[in-house]
Amino acid sequence: MSDQPDTTRGTGETGDRRDFLQLLTARLGSAVLTERSSTARYAHDEAEWAPYVPPLAVVRAASTDDVVEAVRLCLEHGVAVVPRGAGTGLSGGANAGADTVVLSLERMDRVLEVDTQEKLAVAQPGVVNDHLRAVVAEHGLWYPPDPASAPWSTIGGNVATNAGGLCCVKYGVTGDYVRELEVVTGTGEVVRLGHRTAKGVAGYDLKSLFVGSEGTLGVVTEVTVRLRPARPPERTVAGYFDSVVEAGAAVAATLASGVVPSALELVDRACLEAVDDWKKMGLSLEANVVLLGRTDTPGADGEADADAIRAAFEGAGAGFVAVSGDSQESEALFAARRLAYPALERLGPVLTEDVCVPVGHVPTMLERIQTTATAYDVHIANIAHAGDGNLHPLIITRPGDDAQRERAQQAFEIILADALALGGTVTGEHGVGLLKRPGLGRELAGEVVAMQRAVKGALDPHGIFNPGKAIV
Amino acid sequence: MSDQPDTTRGTGETGDRRDFLQLLTARLGSAVLTERSSTARYAHDEAEWAPYVPPLAVVRAASTDDVVEAVRLCLEHGVAVVPRGAGTGLSGGANAGADTVVLSLERMDRVLEVDTQEKLAVAQPGVVNDHLRAVVAEHGLWYPPDPASAPWSTIGGNVATNAGGLCCVKYGVTGDYVRELEVVTGTGEVVRLGHRTAKGVAGYDLKSLFVGSEGTLGVVTEVTVRLRPARPPERTVAGYFDSVVEAGAAVAATLASGVVPSALELVDRACLEAVDDWKKMGLSLEANVVLLGRTDTPGADGEADADAIRAAFEGAGAGFVAVSGDSQESEALFAARRLAYPALERLGPVLTEDVCVPVGHVPTMLERIQTTATAYDVHIANIAHAGDGNLHPLIITRPGDDAQRERAQQAFEIILADALALGGTVTGEHGVGLLKRPGLGRELAGEVVAMQRAVKGALDPHGIFNPGKAIV
Repeated sequence: MSDQPDTTRGTGETGDRRDFLQLLTARLGSAVLTERSSTARYAHDEAEWAPYVPPLAVVRAASTDDVVEAVRLCLEHGVAVVPRGAGTGLSGGANAGADTVVLSLERMDRVLEVDTQEKLAVAQPGVVNDHLRAVVAEHGLWYPPDPASAPWSTIGGNVATNAGGLCCVKYGVTGDYVRELEVVTGTGEVVRLGHRTAKGVAGYDLKSLFVGSEGTLGVVTEVTVRLRPARPPERTVAGYFDSVVEAGAAVAATLASGVVPSALELVDRACLEAVDDWKKMGLSLEANVVLLGRTDTPGADGEADADAIRAAFEGAGAGFVAVSGDSQESEALFAARRLAYPALERLGPVLTEDVCVPVGHVPTMLERIQTTATAYDVHIANIAHAGDGNLHPLIITRPGDDAQRERAQQAFEIILADALALGGTVTGEHGVGLLKRPGLGRELAGEVVAMQRAVKGALDPHGIFNPGKAIV
Repeated sequence: MSDQPDTTRGTGETGDRRDFLQLLTARLGSAVLTERSSTARYAHDEAEWAPYVPPLAVVRAASTDDVVEAVRLCLEHGVAVVPRGAGTGLSGGANAGADTVVLSLERMDRVLEVDTQEKLAVAQPGVVNDHLRAVVAEHGLWYPPDPASAPWSTIGGNVATNAGGLCCVKYGVTGDYVRELEVVTGTGEVVRLGHRTAKGVAGYDLKSLFVGSEGTLGVVTEVTVRLRPARPPERTVAGYFDSVVEAGAAVAATLASGVVPSALELVDRACLEAVDDWKKMGLSLEANVVLLGRTDTPGADGEADADAIRAAFEGAGAGFVAVSGDSQESEALFAARRLAYPALERLGPVLTEDVCVPVGHVPTMLERIQTTATAYDVHIANIAHAGDGNLHPLIITRPGDDAQRERAQQAFEIILADALALGGTVTGEHGVGLLKRPGLGRELAGEVVAMQRAVKGALDPHGIFNPGKAIV
């Protein structure tokens, strides 16, 4: 235990914790990691600005039974549990705190069932999003939620944050696809919440309450999702704009046209350059802002949709518009969109925003972000799910520049305040975690905070699940 | 008070209640009804088999302030509150109990806002579903949830039960469209839950928890819903079958074809005859079971969808199949589907089921319902949202035949048990109310019941909202 000074509060407690770790290892064997060298990579997610301390231990659960064992022992010993998927979160929701056990679900990575008749799949929480999508695609089915992290993030993590993605402007977010959850509760019981059937209103909708609760109400050990039939190929409309204001106007015009795009993404030059520097994709870098609209409406109506998107882009001042089926260029632009975050991370610490505003306020919000970047002398790149008002300004700082880092944190809070002032929210799809708790406190009325605390107390009566996260 | 003997428990309480009613009337004036002759029509919903007693009083709230006033006074005096929309519920969720005030929201019937850019509407809870749909249609927008009660039921009631409808096989249920709720809480505060934006994960999803909670967690005083663009006209495929088993096979074949129908309804001969007797629609009554499939896919793909549905019907043994655009006959058949419940009610007391089973088990469930009808010597008519497995066997009894009524209640429970045995739920869209509490107790594990009670206790700490409903 000599390598764990931060996690104990005194000699007596050190002894308690030594006993606890011995019991944990006795019961769960090689699933338990206690060496700092092993636990380090489980201590935090990708929100590198959020605080963390090394956990007491990491449990790499291989089964629901393992989770129950770990949770019950933590309950007995008053040790907090931090559930964790792939650690791709961007808000610090999976960051370890003092006196915690990180419960990693990454080994529970099997797709247990694909039911083509009921159009559903049952997955363990550690299944990677893209893997689930590939497995169901073999059956002619489609699992829509597609966060940019889909190649790495897990279904359990997606449920924890109610992850969105590119196609959710038309098809909704993770929670819209979750039918049933198996959960290990705050009293160490295994329960099933929700319904396997297409509809069901028997009892309170605790399943939806758990979706997006960031591991603070229990540990999700199995997820049943509904699926759609494989969809027709998409048409892509790429528009190049001089300014975010023009691009924002194009977004508004597209949505006003009556078309429901299957994606409507914004990427700015900073992101494209960072991706091209990294991946040498040969992207055209002639625009300051690129809008990528897609439609998956089939046939002639799909052509009409694509024409309407093109007209909206041109009417808003696009310098260049290209419509394509599945051309290499449109695929490259979408790939660049997905790679923007890791590409920017290579340039220095990135502070990621996730504000969501009414779509009519997208141009105004983008302008205010530019103003903030100038006022605080920080570099802000932009990617956005523009079609649903969910913006990801990425505040990038020079490594080692502490003064700029401080200004970046100020800019972060200003952007949250601007989003709230426009009737928006501090987080559209990444979750509150640690980074957005101050913003959450400004967003929610005191009475709502009290209701949320009451629900937390009701379902996690001993306060062991991910304390200090998600709510204020 | 001499007309309220059932609602008081003793002389002292009678005096308390007299004071309470005087205060209520002093504060809310003509919104308060206390005469038995006036309160009688607010004492129960359309689940005539569910118990009720006359309430102490009815408050016909005209504003959120009225609701706050009533709730706070009820809190002070320990009087339970039974929220009520149009009273079209089918489970007894709005039935008054002893020592309750019925809080009617029917006068809060204004559509406050239609925002075409954000594609959302804000409605008071007493707005009738069809009225909201008509108002937004004027703006080229569409509010999909379409319970058969849409001409009468209110948005507040739809939220309370998470109402489904005919198009939810493709477009989802009420909860899928609710963005934000204004609620008067168990401590008499006014809060807003959810987000007006397209996405938002700030804090626990209390909005979804309130949807379907049947007025047991608070009183919904405003509802913000998202809208879709007006949709293309539908094509209808009507298939006539000799038996429910054939029709069930046609449902399975349709869903397996990859088509996502915009409706897939089943109506049996008993329902069609009852409607025709009442409305003289001149319906063709040559089939024992009619399946109504619809597609709103536009253009040639829509034609292909309709052809696939026809092929599925024919392959399953349909004696006659007709494909039409918006022909009078298909409209008449859909109208008959919507009128089936009130038409059957004319024949005698109706006990309404709302089981939902996996779609693959629809044929088996329909067979078991027939078996139950025979075994218990009761008449069971069937309407069903067959495409999502949500069946409404309607148990009809002769007025005044107490022995048959008792057998009907036994048959009701047998059908619930059969649905659970097939992996289904006791209620797909009508709610638990009073009628399905025994079934709910069999459906949910004890640990889940405990979680639901804990949530109820957290959000309604004084237990004043609709006690004895929705949960066990």
